[in-house]
Amino acid sequence: MSDTILIKAGEGELAAVLEALRRFLGERLQTTDAVREAHGRDESWHETHRPDAVAFVHSTDEVSEIVRLCSDAKVPVIAFGTGTSLEGQVSAVAGGICIDMSGMNQVLQVHPEDLDCRVEAGVTRKQLNTYLRDTGLFFPIDPGADASLGGMAATRASGTNAVRYGTMRENVLNVTAVLSTGEVISTGGRARKSAAGYDLTRLLVGSEGTLGIITELTLRLQGIPEAISGGVCPFDNLSGAVDAVIETIQSGIPIARIELLDEVQVRACNAYSKLDLAETTTLFVEFHGTAASVAEQSERFGAIAQDHGGREFNWTTEAEERSRLWEARHNAYYAALALEPGKKGMTTDVCVPISKLALCLTETKADVEASFLTAPIVGHVGDGNFHLIMLVDPDNAKDMAEARRIHDRMISRALAHEGTCTGEHGIGLGKIAFLETELGAGVDVMRTLKRALDPHNILNPGKIVSL
Amino acid sequence: MSDTILIKAGEGELAAVLEALRRFLGERLQTTDAVREAHGRDESWHETHRPDAVAFVHSTDEVSEIVRLCSDAKVPVIAFGTGTSLEGQVSAVAGGICIDMSGMNQVLQVHPEDLDCRVEAGVTRKQLNTYLRDTGLFFPIDPGADASLGGMAATRASGTNAVRYGTMRENVLNVTAVLSTGEVISTGGRARKSAAGYDLTRLLVGSEGTLGIITELTLRLQGIPEAISGGVCPFDNLSGAVDAVIETIQSGIPIARIELLDEVQVRACNAYSKLDLAETTTLFVEFHGTAASVAEQSERFGAIAQDHGGREFNWTTEAEERSRLWEARHNAYYAALALEPGKKGMTTDVCVPISKLALCLTETKADVEASFLTAPIVGHVGDGNFHLIMLVDPDNAKDMAEARRIHDRMISRALAHEGTCTGEHGIGLGKIAFLETELGAGVDVMRTLKRALDPHNILNPGKIVSL
Repeated sequence: MSDTILIKAGEGELAAVLEALRRFLGERLQTTDAVREAHGRDESWHETHRPDAVAFVHSTDEVSEIVRLCSDAKVPVIAFGTGTSLEGQVSAVAGGICIDMSGMNQVLQVHPEDLDCRVEAGVTRKQLNTYLRDTGLFFPIDPGADASLGGMAATRASGTNAVRYGTMRENVLNVTAVLSTGEVISTGGRARKSAAGYDLTRLLVGSEGTLGIITELTLRLQGIPEAISGGVCPFDNLSGAVDAVIETIQSGIPIARIELLDEVQVRACNAYSKLDLAETTTLFVEFHGTAASVAEQSERFGAIAQDHGGREFNWTTEAEERSRLWEARHNAYYAALALEPGKKGMTTDVCVPISKLALCLTETKADVEASFLTAPIVGHVGDGNFHLIMLVDPDNAKDMAEARRIHDRMISRALAHEGTCTGEHGIGLGKIAFLETELGAGVDVMRTLKRALDPHNILNPGKIVSL
Repeated sequence: MSDTILIKAGEGELAAVLEALRRFLGERLQTTDAVREAHGRDESWHETHRPDAVAFVHSTDEVSEIVRLCSDAKVPVIAFGTGTSLEGQVSAVAGGICIDMSGMNQVLQVHPEDLDCRVEAGVTRKQLNTYLRDTGLFFPIDPGADASLGGMAATRASGTNAVRYGTMRENVLNVTAVLSTGEVISTGGRARKSAAGYDLTRLLVGSEGTLGIITELTLRLQGIPEAISGGVCPFDNLSGAVDAVIETIQSGIPIARIELLDEVQVRACNAYSKLDLAETTTLFVEFHGTAASVAEQSERFGAIAQDHGGREFNWTTEAEERSRLWEARHNAYYAALALEPGKKGMTTDVCVPISKLALCLTETKADVEASFLTAPIVGHVGDGNFHLIMLVDPDNAKDMAEARRIHDRMISRALAHEGTCTGEHGIGLGKIAFLETELGAGVDVMRTLKRALDPHNILNPGKIVSL
């Protein structure tokens, strides 16, 4: 990272922008220490960098006006949804104005007949699903946190349903975004597919606020399945569980969710969510379809699991028991943190071809077992994606050195097996070096795109690419 | 379109490039009239523009070297797969060097356990599926033509299976591409999902050779379903058929294919493919899954069809009869052309939210019925995508004016209903003006991207965006 992006805006320019923003937003521009502190960090271990001010916005036009002012003065602008990113994406490393999108929280349209909806970027995934409750529809993308949909699009989030329904990449039909000049663009209509020019939607999805600020988005929705079955299957060992996953995927069972928790994570979930699961490697699975189809899928999975050392697979179509399990799964990160109160989670994720999953998981597990750190493993294994959550004291150099060593080995291993350095957390501050290893000259193309669309480097500077 | 892109390279520069290429490629550089003519047009009505020479390449390195030479001399470079595009994508409007990829036709790797494969860009979709025959896998994207996979990626092609398996957008895991400088990049590994920086894969997919030349690609594969059922259902009228489609999609039946042919297209297919279907609006459908699941899906679809004026729905799991029907469907364009031998097809496609499909289809059909042109309608209606094939004599001004009038009304109607001006044929030469209408300021962003990645406008100039 060169120095340029860390140089804060000149005091004079910044003061003038703050003055203009105060006139424009009144009380909705905040500069207190507490507000700046809360907006300078996410849920990760990354260092806090406070923005100079936080603007609480209500509309795309307001975002546009703010960016225009900042563009003229070359002051950084960082979009902020719920602050639940995991690679330091919201950290204001060069200061500037944080735009808090939480006030843009309206569901604008639902088109049940087209299975889509339009929302403001600050709507959270749980808020949307609550809103949709009576429509028979749901939005499937579910990272652990109750993140904002704009933030989820910006980080190309996914979650437990991705193996069936895809990630934000597949489920955003279009976005409205504010460019670095303040200009507002829409990237398309509501057609399910389009061959109309460059894929601007996919360019902005995953760009972490560095190419434009997403203010509204149109999302694909899914019909709530007629029947859902699911259950939990404990395994004697990690490799048996992974082999069962691989065979399930290869056999074409249209599984909706298949999640792996190692015994450390099961222990954490038992404690945090008051469950009494056997503390061994465990798969959480779910099937969507008609009653006949979910029964067929469940039986087939059960047979596969048995072949690979699965102990017993009890499945149910009862909603209550399933909800309790999936709630526990979604709280896995918080459960992991609760294992050693006061520590932070250095969490990382990789995604590999499924044939490499057993190797990458078992070697990572071996690294953890040889270490003094506590580090549960949990994964969206149907996609070949898994997470390691290392509990660290960021002020303890020994903790940090050990965590970085295991972290780097895990990522290098994934890259050596044609995987990616992040399946769903994004690059942010934490993985810039690995992106270079993964893509080489491709990162030069990213820099070219960044320079073309944000020549003054004001949009979330210091993330994804270093200029 | 400004004049600049139509100015051919200076004679001196061009001669020097041709000389260098001849030294480099020997007999694999061709400049005969016949070869240039065949490479200056696609299957559409668009005017032929010959390249100055055609280079038959064998490797990414060769493409890189050719582009490097052309870049230095600012000579245009157009990639050519099978020449089956439909919006003039391969037309050498500013002359230059056509790179014929048909010699890059090796399937490089198949990873059955990961459900993916790696191919050179000149491999065609049928060639790949023949190659995969013994693996239990298939590649689902199926435009009518036996197009090259590189060309299909470059135009973001789709086809009859898209409603179930997505388009090239969802099924390309990564590409190797040659940039305008001649530099070679890879856009990623084989992971199913990635949050690693800007989505360079999706940026190149659909860019029609204007941002880079795709030379190799990794594709997702699907397991051949255990059971396939399918059949044909004639309807009393268009709106009943469309309503049946809408209810099928909304009810969540995971239909694999659902295609609409109007009575003109059915007549054309009967004649061309020797079928004896009732000459009325007809749906071709197919279901993939287990034996129990395809039976359940077929029965449910049959009941929905009956509710909307479907005459009789006979379905079968027999492969032979299904293959004959789908072969006929894939030949729909050629069947349409055969209705009036000697005429060309002005074919166009739009894609709209499914709730607008009935309206857009019936209004388009009314335009055709009020016209003197013959123009079958055929559509991948599960996605809201349909095609109009107007038979015209390009030298007859009256034909062309009428075809353009209906064409423009069809696209304007789609855009008025939040659709797109092309679901799968792309922009090419034919839809540049509509892209502006559809995206407005978004097209400025496309121009910015084009200028940043191809500052001398040598990559397939004149397509998608006018500079």
